[in-house]
Amino acid sequence: MIDTLAPEIAASHWFNIDKPLKLSDLRGKVVVIEAFQMLCPGCVAHGLPQASLIAQTFAPDQVQVIGLHTVFEHHEVQGTNAALAAFIHEYRLAFPIAIDTPQQGTPVPQTMAALNLRGTPSLIIIDQEGIIRHNHFGRPDDMAVGAQIMVLIMASQKSVIPGAANVQDSDTCRIDGDCG
Amino acid sequence: MIDTLAPEIAASHWFNIDKPLKLSDLRGKVVVIEAFQMLCPGCVAHGLPQASLIAQTFAPDQVQVIGLHTVFEHHEVQGTNAALAAFIHEYRLAFPIAIDTPQQGTPVPQTMAALNLRGTPSLIIIDQEGIIRHNHFGRPDDMAVGAQIMVLIMASQKSVIPGAANVQDSDTCRIDGDCG
Amino acid sequence: MIDTLAPEIAASHWFNIDKPLKLSDLRGKVVVIEAFQMLCPGCVAHGLPQASLIAQTFAPDQVQVIGLHTVFEHHEVQGTNAALAAFIHEYRLAFPIAIDTPQQGTPVPQTMAALNLRGTPSLIIIDQEGIIRHNHFGRPDDMAVGAQIMVLIMASQKSVIPGAANVQDSDTCRIDGDCG
Amino acid sequence: MIDTLAPEIAASHWFNIDKPLKLSDLRGKVVVIEAFQMLCPGCVAHGLPQASLIAQTFAPDQVQVIGLHTVFEHHEVQGTNAALAAFIHEYRLAFPIAIDTPQQGTPVPQTMAALNLRGTPSLIIIDQEGIIRHNHFGRPDDMAVGAQIMVLIMASQKSVIPGAANVQDSDTCRIDGDCG
Repeated sequence: MIDTLAPEIAASHWFNIDKPLKLSDLRGKVVVIEAFQMLCPGCVAHGLPQASLIAQTFAPDQVQVIGLHTVFEHHEVQGTNAALAAFIHEYRLAFPIAIDTPQQGTPVPQTMAALNLRGTPSLIIIDQEGIIRHNHFGRPDDMAVGAQIMVLIMASQKSVIPGAANVQDSDTCRIDGDCG
Repeated sequence: MIDTLAPEIAASHWFNIDKPLKLSDLRGKVVVIEAFQMLCPGCVAHGLPQASLIAQTFAPDQVQVIGLHTVFEHHEVQGTNAALAAFIHEYRLAFPIAIDTPQQGTPVPQTMAALNLRGTPSLIIIDQEGIIRHNHFGRPDDMAVGAQIMVLIMASQKSVIPGAANVQDSDTCRIDGDCG
Repeated sequence: MIDTLAPEIAASHWFNIDKPLKLSDLRGKVVVIEAFQMLCPGCVAHGLPQASLIAQTFAPDQVQVIGLHTVFEHHEVQGTNAALAAFIHEYRLAFPIAIDTPQQGTPVPQTMAALNLRGTPSLIIIDQEGIIRHNHFGRPDDMAVGAQIMVLIMASQKSVIPGAANVQDSDTCRIDGDCG
Repeated sequence: MIDTLAPEIAASHWFNIDKPLKLSDLRGKVVVIEAFQMLCPGCVAHGLPQASLIAQTFAPDQVQVIGLHTVFEHHEVQGTNAALAAFIHEYRLAFPIAIDTPQQGTPVPQTMAALNLRGTPSLIIIDQEGIIRHNHFGRPDDMAVGAQIMVLIMASQKSVIPGAANVQDSDTCRIDGDCG
């Protein structure tokens, strides 16, 4: 496999961060991109919880998790900032999330096309030099993902011991408050 | 508890059915209403799958499952027909679903207010006379819900034997062989 | 289907109860028999938790849950009172459990043969007259089981409303104490 | 933390391997020991499946998974070779498993005492030099365990890229079609 430099994220908007992230500014960190759509059942059930677990398991100065809202269907519904903002709020997603910029003449947005993704959820793991190392379509298991990320961390530095992580959540939306 | 007649569903739109359902036309059937919001995590993870299971477990001439999209937050995102249509498509929901009609001056829509719901997901079980028998907020377990529905079926008619639903042969040990 | 009277349980020993249960003494109650083996993975993962949930969901004066240890393989390991006693203790099973009496010349014990079971786990539902109504091999879902039991309760009496049930457990065995 | 050399496994018997394993012969590999009891619910539900996943995720020339049956209660039931043999067969455990040798005067067997374990399940991760790096009591999550093992693999050799384990195509949304 020829090394492929990850293309920059073409974002029309960012959430959970004050200024846009540039991959070129993240050299030295492993970058994990979770490409998702808010109406994709597999993204909601598996992809996004896995991305949150990555963010909790690894130190933020070593691994940067980024969500990428790659709308390629139901644009009229999923394709507004307000829709994604509400989704991020209700699902309590805490990592930076970019809206992938739509393109003329194709339903596939710019970054999704540049990454040559097959669909959502996709988990892209990029090393500290910006090279794409893994591009999972579907549901990779947590153990393999943990190992793959650690390979990259260790390839550039040593003696890192990740702590254990636990994710818990509950499940209702009250009239007088938020979901949780 | 005083018997409470279920209020009619004030729907601004229906999906998965050609003409609006009226509870008064459903006398003689148990009616199960799943009140949900498309951005409510507990609805997606538990409430709607349970509603689908009810529709698969009980005969359609005895139990009518109805989804009710009770938007009380994020109206600008969840409150369009197109948004719910895309959600229903992606989550493959097959039972009739109504959009609860918004009200002036309050975020709570009409039917949700009339049913006095505390939030979503809520599962309302209505008997064949239109009386509300159960109003669950949160996540009732499948066994109790199956029993509660069957109480109502049996109270109005007898000798009904539900089929064995979804009996699977995995995780068994056969007399003539190994476990598997 | 011709009505089949459930055969009496041929028990070599009982746990969790002071004196042997006789089905003929349980007329008037629905009786649910969970046939299991302590080394059957599907029994441990699904069958026995479902039996416990039945015991928690329905009133004890209406439904009697009975475990039946039907050893048809690994007799030398599973076939002692001490083995089952330890298993019952560690898995915190609270309902009465009988050891099915072994037979000469066949690995299948007496009651298992009389019930014509295909293997474990099997869930047998017996009505208030002692007639076998359901004989599930494998993993019936909770909703169908809840409905099937309630059919029988309602066929003989009315106005029963089951409460909701929750089962929780944790997962370690400490040196200084019990599992839990 | 002072480096602690893992004590040799004091096995009274081995399963799934022709001759006893010695840790001193496994230098150069990461060794993962799953300490369990066959009647420990958390071992059955979580610990042993995790051990199997480790064996499937990592290459056998880099990581050796070993089960250790550390009976500290119910010795008369769990403490026979036949009992464990039947358990291993029914649960289809494929990695080498040792029976920890009982000690006089204490219910805790020899290796369990030498490892200073608090109970079962415990997951002990040992590096290529034989040093104990992690000693988890309970249920560590798969991602952290995958990362912890890979730290050790990478610390001793570089340029190892683990394959994508168990990537499945369910729960995905394809560009050219629907979600499914």
